[in-house]
Amino acid sequence: LQLKQYEEDEAGAYMQIEVYTAGLEQNVHDVINDFAELRRNDELENVNYLFVTDKEKKLRYGVGLDNLLVFDFNKTLKDNIERTPEKFKPIVATDHDAIDDVVQKFQEYDLNSMPVVDKEGVLLGRITSDDIYDIINEQATDQMYHLAGVNDDAEEDEDIFKAGKARAIWLSVNLLTAIAASLVIGMFEETLQSIVALAILMPIVASMGGNAGTQSLTVVVRQLALGDIAKHDAFRTIKKEVILSLANGLFFAIIMGIIASVWFDKGMLGVVIALSMVINLLSAGFFGSMVPLLLKKLDVDPAIGSTVILTTVTDVVGFFSFLGLATLILL
Amino acid sequence: LQLKQYEEDEAGAYMQIEVYTAGLEQNVHDVINDFAELRRNDELENVNYLFVTDKEKKLRYGVGLDNLLVFDFNKTLKDNIERTPEKFKPIVATDHDAIDDVVQKFQEYDLNSMPVVDKEGVLLGRITSDDIYDIINEQATDQMYHLAGVNDDAEEDEDIFKAGKARAIWLSVNLLTAIAASLVIGMFEETLQSIVALAILMPIVASMGGNAGTQSLTVVVRQLALGDIAKHDAFRTIKKEVILSLANGLFFAIIMGIIASVWFDKGMLGVVIALSMVINLLSAGFFGSMVPLLLKKLDVDPAIGSTVILTTVTDVVGFFSFLGLATLILL
Repeated sequence: LQLKQYEEDEAGAYMQIEVYTAGLEQNVHDVINDFAELRRNDELENVNYLFVTDKEKKLRYGVGLDNLLVFDFNKTLKDNIERTPEKFKPIVATDHDAIDDVVQKFQEYDLNSMPVVDKEGVLLGRITSDDIYDIINEQATDQMYHLAGVNDDAEEDEDIFKAGKARAIWLSVNLLTAIAASLVIGMFEETLQSIVALAILMPIVASMGGNAGTQSLTVVVRQLALGDIAKHDAFRTIKKEVILSLANGLFFAIIMGIIASVWFDKGMLGVVIALSMVINLLSAGFFGSMVPLLLKKLDVDPAIGSTVILTTVTDVVGFFSFLGLATLILL
Repeated sequence: LQLKQYEEDEAGAYMQIEVYTAGLEQNVHDVINDFAELRRNDELENVNYLFVTDKEKKLRYGVGLDNLLVFDFNKTLKDNIERTPEKFKPIVATDHDAIDDVVQKFQEYDLNSMPVVDKEGVLLGRITSDDIYDIINEQATDQMYHLAGVNDDAEEDEDIFKAGKARAIWLSVNLLTAIAASLVIGMFEETLQSIVALAILMPIVASMGGNAGTQSLTVVVRQLALGDIAKHDAFRTIKKEVILSLANGLFFAIIMGIIASVWFDKGMLGVVIALSMVINLLSAGFFGSMVPLLLKKLDVDPAIGSTVILTTVTDVVGFFSFLGLATLILL
């Protein structure tokens, strides 16, 4: 009941409220006897830490059982701890901390348990490694599903209609953007009428741009999620993606340029498709990295909608540059 | 050095060889004194389990420190354990077990440590929760990257040229399949010449098919990775995806059919695009689920190459059904 107060992304929503606690002034022997009693009643499982609190129930120390085992059992916790108190300073989460940050800390400090306290420092519960496994998996599933325009919760629902509706929403957005791209093609109706080869080659430019852009997008979305891209790295990330895309753009432009000129026996058609591929792959790298970085900056999940935005860009740039250059050069 | 014998996907490659062990006949008091000594020399970190071995170094029991704490310190481990031996049967991995199965077990049994033994049962080391965090994240990154045609190892390399080369390989495959799709368009050159509206609308059919297929593909790839699709579930999975795709296919076919007939003032053009969208989204759901299931059955990573295979299918089916139906109905 108490857990209901928390938002889905807050640490408090994930904590277990069963914890193994003792007071600072307690004798170690008594603490262990109390623990044995709890264990006999099957009231505590998967315990690795003893949380030590003061009289106001505020968390003071966290003692790993490996340390507790070598304490002097005839002294109080306080006496044992105060020889090396810095060793027992716990890494804590407050109940309203973002669960993402908590997961990061578990990985950074190799934790398998973390106490959760309120803003006064009063111990509320703990989060354990098995919760973290689930959260890491869920986060990754969310990212993959969001990139594909699928909703995690809807897919897991028994009601197949819900999954269908959630998918339809993204397909609707895609239909609108696909129509927008078609309007761009429509601008060049006369050009297409006079050179039908353009209609045949047109999807190649868009498809290569879409693929190169998806590569950049996926790498940036994932590295943002793993915390591998810090804020000041944004420029370096965009630069890297643009260089990679441009290099591959030049490479494939030459290959496809040659293929197109031979295929349709028209040298300048090769030049047109080559130029438009360079333009499209360059913009694919730029927008593939920009879109998630921008969404992140706006505090939106970088994975949601980014694929649709990106493929719209690569379709529009692809069709416009290819048919536009063809109109200028070939007509 | 010893770790070098293992393949990347074997449990042995991930184990730490520092473990906290004791012999079955040892007195608990002595065990704890030995442990205190190790701790004072900083030789053991992050310990939650005492592994109990027999004279041949074979692993017999695993005792959580929470249990050790309430043992009778004046008796041997054997005497303490034998009151409830089934409680101390450890969940073990053998060194050549697939690391994926080990990760599954950690999650299933909420473990934070697992002993690794050889085929004779001799204790070799342990895998801990912090290794598992890394592996879960890596697996998810691999899946996402593979879906996008990106290579995890190459991306993490400092050498930007390696990432570019790895990406170029998938772009090459995509170029070939895009050319194959263009050949399909080329088969309908005359149709395109007489009705240029077809060239304008053509990418919409392919794009909607590609998106719907990617939704199915991503869900199936991820659920295979999480172990949510058992072998006997394959048929049910395909059925679900086909139903979802077909439902959305019918819905968007009607919408796009109306838009196309109004846009180009030609009722039968609407019928053609609607029919071809139903066909393409139906095949998108079918192949989006079939491709990863088939790759898995062939013991290939379901994520590698599946996007390229799928979009080839949706492009070819989309172009062929749309232009083919147009030739039959409109000419």
